[in-house]
Amino acid sequence: MDSLGIALLGCGTVGRGVTQLLLNQADRLAARAGRSLVLRKILLRNPAKYTSYPPRELVTSDYASILADPSIEVVAELIGGTTDAKEYVLAALAAGKHVVTANKALLAEHGTAIFRAAEKAGRVVAFEASVAGGVPIIAAIGQSLAANQILSIQGILNGTSNFILTAMADRNQTYVDALAEAQALGYAEADPTLDVDGSDAAHKLAVLVRLGFGIELSVSQINRRGIDQIHSMDLRFAQELGYTIKLLAEAWLTERQVALHVSPVLLRQTSMLAQVRGAFNAIQVVGDVVGETLYQGPGAGMMATASAVVADLIDVAIGRAQRTFPHLRIWSATSGDFRVRDPLTVRSRFYLRLMVADRPGVLADITRLLAEQQISISSVIQHEAIDESGEGTVPLVIMTHSAQAGAFASAVERINRLAGVSSPGVSYTVAD
Amino acid sequence: MDSLGIALLGCGTVGRGVTQLLLNQADRLAARAGRSLVLRKILLRNPAKYTSYPPRELVTSDYASILADPSIEVVAELIGGTTDAKEYVLAALAAGKHVVTANKALLAEHGTAIFRAAEKAGRVVAFEASVAGGVPIIAAIGQSLAANQILSIQGILNGTSNFILTAMADRNQTYVDALAEAQALGYAEADPTLDVDGSDAAHKLAVLVRLGFGIELSVSQINRRGIDQIHSMDLRFAQELGYTIKLLAEAWLTERQVALHVSPVLLRQTSMLAQVRGAFNAIQVVGDVVGETLYQGPGAGMMATASAVVADLIDVAIGRAQRTFPHLRIWSATSGDFRVRDPLTVRSRFYLRLMVADRPGVLADITRLLAEQQISISSVIQHEAIDESGEGTVPLVIMTHSAQAGAFASAVERINRLAGVSSPGVSYTVAD
Repeated sequence: MDSLGIALLGCGTVGRGVTQLLLNQADRLAARAGRSLVLRKILLRNPAKYTSYPPRELVTSDYASILADPSIEVVAELIGGTTDAKEYVLAALAAGKHVVTANKALLAEHGTAIFRAAEKAGRVVAFEASVAGGVPIIAAIGQSLAANQILSIQGILNGTSNFILTAMADRNQTYVDALAEAQALGYAEADPTLDVDGSDAAHKLAVLVRLGFGIELSVSQINRRGIDQIHSMDLRFAQELGYTIKLLAEAWLTERQVALHVSPVLLRQTSMLAQVRGAFNAIQVVGDVVGETLYQGPGAGMMATASAVVADLIDVAIGRAQRTFPHLRIWSATSGDFRVRDPLTVRSRFYLRLMVADRPGVLADITRLLAEQQISISSVIQHEAIDESGEGTVPLVIMTHSAQAGAFASAVERINRLAGVSSPGVSYTVAD
Repeated sequence: MDSLGIALLGCGTVGRGVTQLLLNQADRLAARAGRSLVLRKILLRNPAKYTSYPPRELVTSDYASILADPSIEVVAELIGGTTDAKEYVLAALAAGKHVVTANKALLAEHGTAIFRAAEKAGRVVAFEASVAGGVPIIAAIGQSLAANQILSIQGILNGTSNFILTAMADRNQTYVDALAEAQALGYAEADPTLDVDGSDAAHKLAVLVRLGFGIELSVSQINRRGIDQIHSMDLRFAQELGYTIKLLAEAWLTERQVALHVSPVLLRQTSMLAQVRGAFNAIQVVGDVVGETLYQGPGAGMMATASAVVADLIDVAIGRAQRTFPHLRIWSATSGDFRVRDPLTVRSRFYLRLMVADRPGVLADITRLLAEQQISISSVIQHEAIDESGEGTVPLVIMTHSAQAGAFASAVERINRLAGVSSPGVSYTVAD
């Protein structure tokens, strides 16, 4: 069979990994794909910026020449972002190329347009690398669990956040110190906003929710909170209660609606996701037939993501991607027509930490306001004040039994107005 | 497109699960496969034994009628064992049927004959359900990690053994009590031999090693020890040293040879595999490109295994299995031509527990014999004797640095002959 001609768009970190793999492991990849994977062109907007890499003879800044080249069957989009990437991907599909992409933001925001264009062109979009890097979660949900109705997806999808939370919990670091360490070690970017505010995880969750539930979701429909406001005090209280705080991207089926959010969540220390440390990603997927499954690995990094991109290229070379793509359940019409649940109607347990005046009656007021919303308490921690410099305030931690988010929010709003409560309560959901 | 006609061979636990799924979720499966999955026949050798299930009109005891039925495209072999199953599978392939199987023993012992027959017939053998039930480990190694040279596979592949070890470690149960509990809860069979002696895990490892390293392995080439001789004392000492003992099926590449065994192994308590509790299965796979990945889920059970069998049926219906099978690296010729390493030449750390006389000079003799084999010691535990009824013997635990298995075995043989050593030393490898 002929070789598979490939063009890369962009040659940043992942692009360099893919280039190295294609050039240095050509024999291995040819053996596994049954045909050679030939890197024909690399599109760079500013070729002058790249002095030593990639190989000069592969570089072009002329996308039209890639589109017009009949020897290029597949375009691997690795430039990121949603503007140029969208235009390039749609043009590639229109020109009859298959597309491999690592771009979760693109799929989260323009998935419907891109997937429709692929369908219309009779080409595929393969996107294993778009979520959780080297973890084959797209194949797991899209293929291996095909006999199941997915019941829930819970993911640690942002390695930067997990690294920071692990450092804070293990070594009692503050958020600021842990972030600085993550940056020094290359686990966080100079501007870490999209990682630590939950946006990156929300993009990935949007892709997984589409695949798992067939919901054509807008990212704005995902309530998201990052770890950038997290206080090490809450990690310690969680530990004392037998829990670990992780930034989770969660979606779960409840009464034919899908509840979802990105948020720090308390997980029992014995749960598998609670064990996931450092920059790893992990996703627990529950199916109605199989039960609980878990997938873990490096969520980012040059070679881990390149491994996923090249797996997709092999899938295209073999013709497997062409069988898979038309059968993915990425359209509302192909699934159970699930809707996104109003977050206020979702039920869960809650962790609430308040800074309260160390005087009689405060706990009575707080518990009364919770009771008025039919919220019952499962445990309370209030230690003796150690340090009097806190102007007489002490932390009070309450764990509730299952309650509706709306009712809990109303209770907290009233609690925050109590004279004995010195700052707005900090609350997180508790996974059970 | 026409429906996919299916015959099941056998209707035991997994067969019932598959039958239920095919009959009760027909619409779901048709939507996902793009065509109906139609269960046409169930082969039972003694139909009279099954009074209420499966549906009478599907049952036959005449295999020739299945082979001759052109409306049956795929045969799902769920009878187990290696004699009749082999004959049925070869006949199905010769008759032009695709085969889906959950039978690890069959593939471990007759894989080459069966895969060759499939190749010759231009049909597929799909076997996701043969290893680790609901964990999609065959897809992970065979497809998702295709860009990688696999460096190691470490699996908790026997749920019964893991359940027993978890109960022994958590609740200080003896092996006998933990086994009885596993039997009472349905996690162990009345005759648990194949589970607890490591045979079941060895069969699964043979399948994974073939897929991961292209080695056409005989099960007899796998050194195996089960958990049936394990003493709770060793679990406690391991805990004290910061380790957990798990029954692991391991294969790893070292100097272009593959070392492999099934054995209880000491794992650091912080490692992911050490966290796997109860009847779950988990496999860590390291690839040279992606790094460490981990897959976990239910390793057995009616519906978990049925989920994998039906995923394979969907793959056949879509035509994906037909693309995948010819590209699997299950032949020595397609891989790096790796050989199995002589176990005596493998290096690892070791745990050694001896029962020694509580008198001067014994430790000196033991450490001298280790030193003579160039084995250095990383830690030692010897507690004060609590109970004098043990005829003056106390346990002595030694952890070594990395040593060659042959040298370690020689040292232990000499140590066992020392007058101060009252019974043969118990040793396990330590994973690092």
